[in-house]
Amino acid sequence: MANTNTNNNSNNSNKNKTNNRRTAAGRNKKSSRASAPKKSPKSKAVQATFKVIPLGGLKEIGKNCTLIECNNEILIIDCGMAFPEYEMFGIDIVIPDFTYLIENSHKVKGLIITHGHEDHIGGVPYLLKEISVPVYASPLAMGMISHKLEEHGLSTERHIIKAGDKVRIGDFKVEAVQTNHSIADSLAYSVKFPGGHIFHTGDFKVDYSPLDGKVIDLSRIAQLGDEGVDVLLCDSTNAFRQGYTPSEAVVRKSIDEIFNNIDRRIIIATFASNVHRIKYFIEASMKHGRKIAVSGRSMENVMALSKELGYMDDIPESVFVDISKIKNLPDKNLTIITTGSQGEPMSALTRMAYDNHKQVKLKKNDVVVFSSSPIPGNEKVISQVVNQLYEKRVEVVLASAMDVHVSGHASSEELKLIHTLIRPKFFMPAHGEYRHLIEHAKLSNRLGQPKTRIFVMSNGDALEVNGKKASIIESYTSGEDIMVDGYGVGDVGSSVLKERKTLSQSGLITVSVVIDQVSGGLMAEPKLNTKGFVYVQENQNLLKQAVSVVYNSIGKCSDEHTLDEASLTRTIKSDMKKFIYAETKRNPVIIPVIMYV
Amino acid sequence: MANTNTNNNSNNSNKNKTNNRRTAAGRNKKSSRASAPKKSPKSKAVQATFKVIPLGGLKEIGKNCTLIECNNEILIIDCGMAFPEYEMFGIDIVIPDFTYLIENSHKVKGLIITHGHEDHIGGVPYLLKEISVPVYASPLAMGMISHKLEEHGLSTERHIIKAGDKVRIGDFKVEAVQTNHSIADSLAYSVKFPGGHIFHTGDFKVDYSPLDGKVIDLSRIAQLGDEGVDVLLCDSTNAFRQGYTPSEAVVRKSIDEIFNNIDRRIIIATFASNVHRIKYFIEASMKHGRKIAVSGRSMENVMALSKELGYMDDIPESVFVDISKIKNLPDKNLTIITTGSQGEPMSALTRMAYDNHKQVKLKKNDVVVFSSSPIPGNEKVISQVVNQLYEKRVEVVLASAMDVHVSGHASSEELKLIHTLIRPKFFMPAHGEYRHLIEHAKLSNRLGQPKTRIFVMSNGDALEVNGKKASIIESYTSGEDIMVDGYGVGDVGSSVLKERKTLSQSGLITVSVVIDQVSGGLMAEPKLNTKGFVYVQENQNLLKQAVSVVYNSIGKCSDEHTLDEASLTRTIKSDMKKFIYAETKRNPVIIPVIMYV
Repeated sequence: MANTNTNNNSNNSNKNKTNNRRTAAGRNKKSSRASAPKKSPKSKAVQATFKVIPLGGLKEIGKNCTLIECNNEILIIDCGMAFPEYEMFGIDIVIPDFTYLIENSHKVKGLIITHGHEDHIGGVPYLLKEISVPVYASPLAMGMISHKLEEHGLSTERHIIKAGDKVRIGDFKVEAVQTNHSIADSLAYSVKFPGGHIFHTGDFKVDYSPLDGKVIDLSRIAQLGDEGVDVLLCDSTNAFRQGYTPSEAVVRKSIDEIFNNIDRRIIIATFASNVHRIKYFIEASMKHGRKIAVSGRSMENVMALSKELGYMDDIPESVFVDISKIKNLPDKNLTIITTGSQGEPMSALTRMAYDNHKQVKLKKNDVVVFSSSPIPGNEKVISQVVNQLYEKRVEVVLASAMDVHVSGHASSEELKLIHTLIRPKFFMPAHGEYRHLIEHAKLSNRLGQPKTRIFVMSNGDALEVNGKKASIIESYTSGEDIMVDGYGVGDVGSSVLKERKTLSQSGLITVSVVIDQVSGGLMAEPKLNTKGFVYVQENQNLLKQAVSVVYNSIGKCSDEHTLDEASLTRTIKSDMKKFIYAETKRNPVIIPVIMYV
Repeated sequence: MANTNTNNNSNNSNKNKTNNRRTAAGRNKKSSRASAPKKSPKSKAVQATFKVIPLGGLKEIGKNCTLIECNNEILIIDCGMAFPEYEMFGIDIVIPDFTYLIENSHKVKGLIITHGHEDHIGGVPYLLKEISVPVYASPLAMGMISHKLEEHGLSTERHIIKAGDKVRIGDFKVEAVQTNHSIADSLAYSVKFPGGHIFHTGDFKVDYSPLDGKVIDLSRIAQLGDEGVDVLLCDSTNAFRQGYTPSEAVVRKSIDEIFNNIDRRIIIATFASNVHRIKYFIEASMKHGRKIAVSGRSMENVMALSKELGYMDDIPESVFVDISKIKNLPDKNLTIITTGSQGEPMSALTRMAYDNHKQVKLKKNDVVVFSSSPIPGNEKVISQVVNQLYEKRVEVVLASAMDVHVSGHASSEELKLIHTLIRPKFFMPAHGEYRHLIEHAKLSNRLGQPKTRIFVMSNGDALEVNGKKASIIESYTSGEDIMVDGYGVGDVGSSVLKERKTLSQSGLITVSVVIDQVSGGLMAEPKLNTKGFVYVQENQNLLKQAVSVVYNSIGKCSDEHTLDEASLTRTIKSDMKKFIYAETKRNPVIIPVIMYV
């Protein structure tokens, strides 16, 4: 964390300036302006028009990224990634299309981060590879971002921002507001600028008894609402849920019950970033004379970061035990906190379930707690892991049977509270699939917001606000998915994915042919190779017949004097396709390779 | 249905015999024995040992198939299929391994079917391709089986069996017992034979107010329990659910509410086989002056079958309207019943959602009801379809928000009822993932069944019962998944699937090389082809470099005098793999093709 700055203008702006200078050489001009609260001359030229441009996060859960553009300045809120959708074969992650930002890099003044979840920070390194921009984030989120930047060999100007902090970024007056969410240090943002005031909730819930005691700052939110908000962007994830999302305190109660009643080894899988919850697991373990071992790369990383940031300050280091040294501990004196609550194939818990974990061998009577609920799409892999745990005769506690997890997103009553406090001129539902956005829009409408002032938008749309008027204007940015596969960003598109899909369905057959370019004669027997098609040994006969199909195709081309590469390729492909389908009802990819010698 | 027989021995066994003779030429001996209730001489030679062998359906939801073997006779209960699991690329369906039945085909006396769901009948054609066996099923299930057999160009001896019917199949005295489930005509079976009595619930729930009025025959189940049951096989799907599964009457109430309050076009997606529920949709539509159009192949097929079987007898044909003629009807006078409740890509509802349905163009204010809940694994595709429906500004009613669907499987209180009525000597939890089987075993144990009398088994295991003793004996059958891909049954195994997976992740590169077999010289420039790798146009440079890598590999082999096919292939593969990974961090399949001329 040595490379980040605290940018709390209220009491230490001088110190910050020094820090900025030391750590972000070459970018001093920007950074000093960013940390100086004085008005820039530009802001006097009142420009009433501004734009809100979501590059990601709408009609999806993932890759949140929203731009505010005003007076030729752009502020970015969040820069997330998404996990590949169904049939995005081989894709590692998906990021927003940054083209607009690259083309307008001179306008980009800063990136502010609401919290450290991957769908809010995962795209940061990919953005920073393209453009240089100072990043503002809360301590935990910044720690995670820094870790990513190190991995990518990147660096940038970084400013720590905490709830209550006010910073100036270009002409944007940014204020961070305390919220509650399933990760520590979550922030909402008030962004004021000439001609506009935007309030973005980030991901949030209203928790009156959060584990760290920091309740969402409803009072400040009410004041901001009183000051007048032009556009509210608000988390829509749980718009369909009636009532209130339960407090984290509910999880604490269930965990107490488990620790009070179980004297066996307890293994808890949860999201690594839920620092406060993990801290409570540790406290409960200590109360019951248990040591804590941590397993899983992301869990270890976040744990190290939490200690560094002081979240674990009142936890003695002696309570931790290295995962390689758990053998000597009696079962009732050990809690293992692990990754894998989503059934991720390489995660620590999955490796335990399938007996591939070096240090942890599961045994009868171990208790595995899933302090999580399935992220949509993961249900099946999770249930495979759960069944595997049952095979090990382990006791499994799921959130569906006991309150060992609560959502981090506001339900409808909490949304109503925020709408009522903010009373925005215009409302843009954020963070959700299309149905969530629509449901949120309906909720807002039921509270009295006219339909004409609610904007359900798509990634790449722009909302243009001019005083009392707002409208979605012609999209000049792209809200497309940019797929990352290995080092390649955007070099795998739909046609490549389509090929991968076809290959995955029936495999392939290569047909290699060597032709004498003078005589047109065949120089060797045509050769067939298959991958992912059938067991070759058991299908020699089929492949033998296939070779004679190739001879026929070549004969046909020879008769018609069409031994050129294009014609031969076409003929072989088409004849082979027909033959294979007739014999097997399969459609492998046929790859003719014609070599002329 | 002309080709099936009614085998109700109580009142029309003579008629049946005639039918058997007429319809199943060449198999008369067996069929007349099957329908004659007199004792066969064999049954006098009391043989106390029998086996229960699950070939499928345990530790999975799918491909149910259980054998009862006694006195060198085998009775099969159900013969289902499963849908391919995650990463079974290109696989159409999965069926049980029938090897044991094929090797012992002379022992197989009959196949009895509990109900017409795919996981109970989908494997029938694949079994009948291998061995000849008379099939016993209720009218709806038999209609569905007959349809399958026609598609596969197969025929077999078929006997209709209804609740209350008793038939003799070899030495097995089979009695069909009325149950309730999410498909019409669901049966449990009592199977008595020398030395044993087995009760198999099939898939069931206890519905005191089913739509067809036929309540599960608890009285007969109680009598059978009093007579003494050696082994109970019982549906475990909902073993984790507390209390009772709600009655279908709950769905009726919700549907009434929808029809009473909505005067727009209503589109209902549900499972085609839930005939009674569909009939209620029709009745509710009629009450409100609506015509009914049906869309989707399986919905049309089952509807035709339902009419043929008399399920729709009190519905006038005039209430139906062809889907191609719905344009002239006012919205408030039309209900469309459709397939696609699981988000199946080619289903009618999915086509409507994506504007690919020829006859149905969705419009604002249409109401789409999902009378279904997601089958695990389908959550993501369903939510994609739902979001697409929201894009069309359609109102979507999901079972999560309104009781438009209830489960067809018994919850824990219903299971307790059956266990209490049957009081079996031994209990084998059936039909469920491993965790469901274990939970069901615990439930049975809590009711007083000793753990030593509960057998949680795997497919391919055999439970051997000898009087008061039972044990799982060494498995001599296979409980493996047999994968069907096109015409191929079992010719795609794990190695082929692994290749398909690799191909799907990063595609492939073929490297073709022509070598002069005399001089060892290269006869043409090496040629690279890619599929599913990268956009070739944008990566010309990479591919150019790759060609020089091939030259290097060949040069290396030439220097070392290892220009044989195996060495060249190995060297090119390994060099190319390293080069591509270093450049792209991807691992495409490298396919060297070496041609000698």
